[in-house]
Amino acid sequence: MRPIFDQKTVKNKCEEIQPKFEQLLGGSNVTSVHSKCQQFSCDEGHFTLSVPSLVLSPSSTDQVSAIVRLCNENRVPLVPRGTGTGLEGGAIPVAGGVVLEFSGMNNVLEVNEVDFDCTVQPGVSRLALNQRLRDSGLFFSVDPGADASVCGMVATSASGTTSLKYGTMKQNVKNLEVVLATGRILHTKGAGRRPWKSSAGYNLTELFIGSEGTLGVITEATVNLHPRPLAVGAVVCGFERLDDAVESVVQLRQMGLSLARLEFLDKAQMQNCIDYSKLDDMLPLPTIFLEFHCQTEEDVQGQIKLAEEICISNSSSNFNSSSSHDEIQKLWKARHNAYYATLANRPGAKGFTTDVCVPLSKLVQVLKETEVRLGQLGLNGAIVGHVGEGNFHCIIPTFEDNREEHTAVMQFSDWLVQTALAVGGTCTGEHGIGLGKKRYMADEFGSVGLDVMKLMKTSLDPNNILNPGKIFE
Amino acid sequence: MRPIFDQKTVKNKCEEIQPKFEQLLGGSNVTSVHSKCQQFSCDEGHFTLSVPSLVLSPSSTDQVSAIVRLCNENRVPLVPRGTGTGLEGGAIPVAGGVVLEFSGMNNVLEVNEVDFDCTVQPGVSRLALNQRLRDSGLFFSVDPGADASVCGMVATSASGTTSLKYGTMKQNVKNLEVVLATGRILHTKGAGRRPWKSSAGYNLTELFIGSEGTLGVITEATVNLHPRPLAVGAVVCGFERLDDAVESVVQLRQMGLSLARLEFLDKAQMQNCIDYSKLDDMLPLPTIFLEFHCQTEEDVQGQIKLAEEICISNSSSNFNSSSSHDEIQKLWKARHNAYYATLANRPGAKGFTTDVCVPLSKLVQVLKETEVRLGQLGLNGAIVGHVGEGNFHCIIPTFEDNREEHTAVMQFSDWLVQTALAVGGTCTGEHGIGLGKKRYMADEFGSVGLDVMKLMKTSLDPNNILNPGKIFE
Repeated sequence: MRPIFDQKTVKNKCEEIQPKFEQLLGGSNVTSVHSKCQQFSCDEGHFTLSVPSLVLSPSSTDQVSAIVRLCNENRVPLVPRGTGTGLEGGAIPVAGGVVLEFSGMNNVLEVNEVDFDCTVQPGVSRLALNQRLRDSGLFFSVDPGADASVCGMVATSASGTTSLKYGTMKQNVKNLEVVLATGRILHTKGAGRRPWKSSAGYNLTELFIGSEGTLGVITEATVNLHPRPLAVGAVVCGFERLDDAVESVVQLRQMGLSLARLEFLDKAQMQNCIDYSKLDDMLPLPTIFLEFHCQTEEDVQGQIKLAEEICISNSSSNFNSSSSHDEIQKLWKARHNAYYATLANRPGAKGFTTDVCVPLSKLVQVLKETEVRLGQLGLNGAIVGHVGEGNFHCIIPTFEDNREEHTAVMQFSDWLVQTALAVGGTCTGEHGIGLGKKRYMADEFGSVGLDVMKLMKTSLDPNNILNPGKIFE
Repeated sequence: MRPIFDQKTVKNKCEEIQPKFEQLLGGSNVTSVHSKCQQFSCDEGHFTLSVPSLVLSPSSTDQVSAIVRLCNENRVPLVPRGTGTGLEGGAIPVAGGVVLEFSGMNNVLEVNEVDFDCTVQPGVSRLALNQRLRDSGLFFSVDPGADASVCGMVATSASGTTSLKYGTMKQNVKNLEVVLATGRILHTKGAGRRPWKSSAGYNLTELFIGSEGTLGVITEATVNLHPRPLAVGAVVCGFERLDDAVESVVQLRQMGLSLARLEFLDKAQMQNCIDYSKLDDMLPLPTIFLEFHCQTEEDVQGQIKLAEEICISNSSSNFNSSSSHDEIQKLWKARHNAYYATLANRPGAKGFTTDVCVPLSKLVQVLKETEVRLGQLGLNGAIVGHVGEGNFHCIIPTFEDNREEHTAVMQFSDWLVQTALAVGGTCTGEHGIGLGKKRYMADEFGSVGLDVMKLMKTSLDPNNILNPGKIFE
């Protein structure tokens, strides 16, 4: 692949072609003012900032196409950016150049209630979309926590707490409009197509899901919607032993229950949550949180009963359930505030978050080793995760200027990835590769896999202008 | 792309390198006997036969790798073949050359019950796999009707009657081992990896799903398993009007019920089934068949009750339900025998099957037009489909030597594809492109989409040795 760009050359090139962008978009949609560009220099992770030379605000796919064409002709790197809520540096313009921001393309273009789908522009966030859908009886299910843009979630292959029932982004995209490096406009399933399934040709949609802006700029996404559940139930259940909590998780999965969420908080995380949210009725034990999505209240009660039997047979210490909206919110309070509760433990610290995903059969072993390792390194980390899928995060509050601690965190993160890889897992369940996980690509995929990916990249972006420096070393 | 091969040149080349294959595989695993090769000249569709020069029976991935390497070096076309149950000619060796058959690679390599997955070689059929799983409480869900090989189903992007709840092949593959045109062995998710989800790198797994042997030879598939439902219920319900049947389908989907199957048979199909299977208690009406997969009998009853309310509110004529195994089999008899019932209408005829998939909102319109069109062309066709997904088949019994009828069938098939494409659908919901749908690729995807697919093909198989003549004109 073409080597990373020389920042000085890129800067000069940007100055040179800025008038062309202004002509194309109007002056107010092009900025080179440093203080403004600085806002697009980071994401929510822990990476070094990198300020772009230009921030462009297109208002149509045709404008995006013209921008990409210009960048390609002039060998100027270009980074598409959603809400900037990523954690692995995927949206940081490490080579400088142009950042595309999509506040001018924030329309929900179509909602097809009968077909359970809708089409959005890249400026639409998931909460904005669900707000728009509130009267339809449908919802967009993928919930990564942050109010990410839907197209950004496509680019990251995001998931979150509801994937167990409704799938990750990979299972929820019907069609994409993508501007290629040449400026050509691709519809991955053909323009305007929205069949529920198809066996026609290669799966181009999936090629762009998780491609992190390195293969094209996503300018429209047609995504699946789901019927809102008519009855919801929740369970919070603590266990003395981590093994019992995880064994319950496995058995709950095996029962094929209508589980929308199956989350885990370790002892440390629960203690942080209890302190932070003053949850006097909860115990600092390894705890699982369940949410059932059903059609009837009877069904919810049936599912809760089955879950209770499983948890009790695995020596649960306390089992709390509810099917009332307010009660459920209260039960889930600990889970919702997990990140902030752990940060509050060390005021002023920033959070470092890991993201491995391992086969369910290896989860107990990896979780236990993780707790031990955190202790050995003197790190004040806590574990929270989508354990129904084998995906968990360690949240570690850390002071960036503490070199020793920073080294320990990096050492821990590296150890955890290697541990996950050794048991058949992945370095990233849902945050993407970005900058943070590039070094593990060869270990995870081997040289053949990496070569095939690079072949895709060089075929579609021979000049390496699309988000260079990401995914591959 | 490299043009299709000259059959004579290919034949000579095969004769020349046959000794090398014999050395590699042993003489008994290489055949050039015409009568044996003839068995690999067709699938279950209506296409012209094409006999390969050689049929090879490898017993390991390394052997497959050596074979592909030899074919690539000698520019000999190569077609991997599962059970040959395809309908669009995907496995027909139109350029002659080598067919790979996998009876020597028919092991279930691994079953991971806790992780809900298993790994199979390309000679394992879906029924053989489910037989192996019978004591595990788990099952492999994708059910296209025929006893296809699992890896063949990956290559075709198959689905069938249970995709509504459990997904198509696209949602059920965790990892693939693929021999590339160079002979290199790719693991699409990295060797031995089985996480439930991952956001690492490009989705190579999905690139090979539905690639119909044109990008590589699948030598192992790691697929998802699902817990067997503990309670099952079925409904068969007839309607005077097709509109009411389809409106019920939409409403059933909107309720978010635990529907594993949602099938439709039109009036003509029901009449054929009643005649064929002597179903005196059923009526020749547009009819929907439902199957619920639940955990408890109460849940089944609750779902049936909700379904009944919906069907009655849409003027259903008769509503029959059951949750007993034998009763369910009886209810589903009509659906199971649909294909043979329609063929029995015209003894000696072969079945021609269409496969469009349209957005649910367009289904009534397209189904009605289809019935009219069949009548106009004097075709004795019947409709059966996975309507919960907008996918339906017309089964048309036809005599191949009746030129006029053949023309009418082709005219109808073409009209139906164009109609589906015009409403945002696809030419193939689950049978693949193969030979039969190649001509629609440009209409379905447009020139940019087709160009990107061709770029993938030429990147991975520059000599076009892998199943040439398929997918692309």
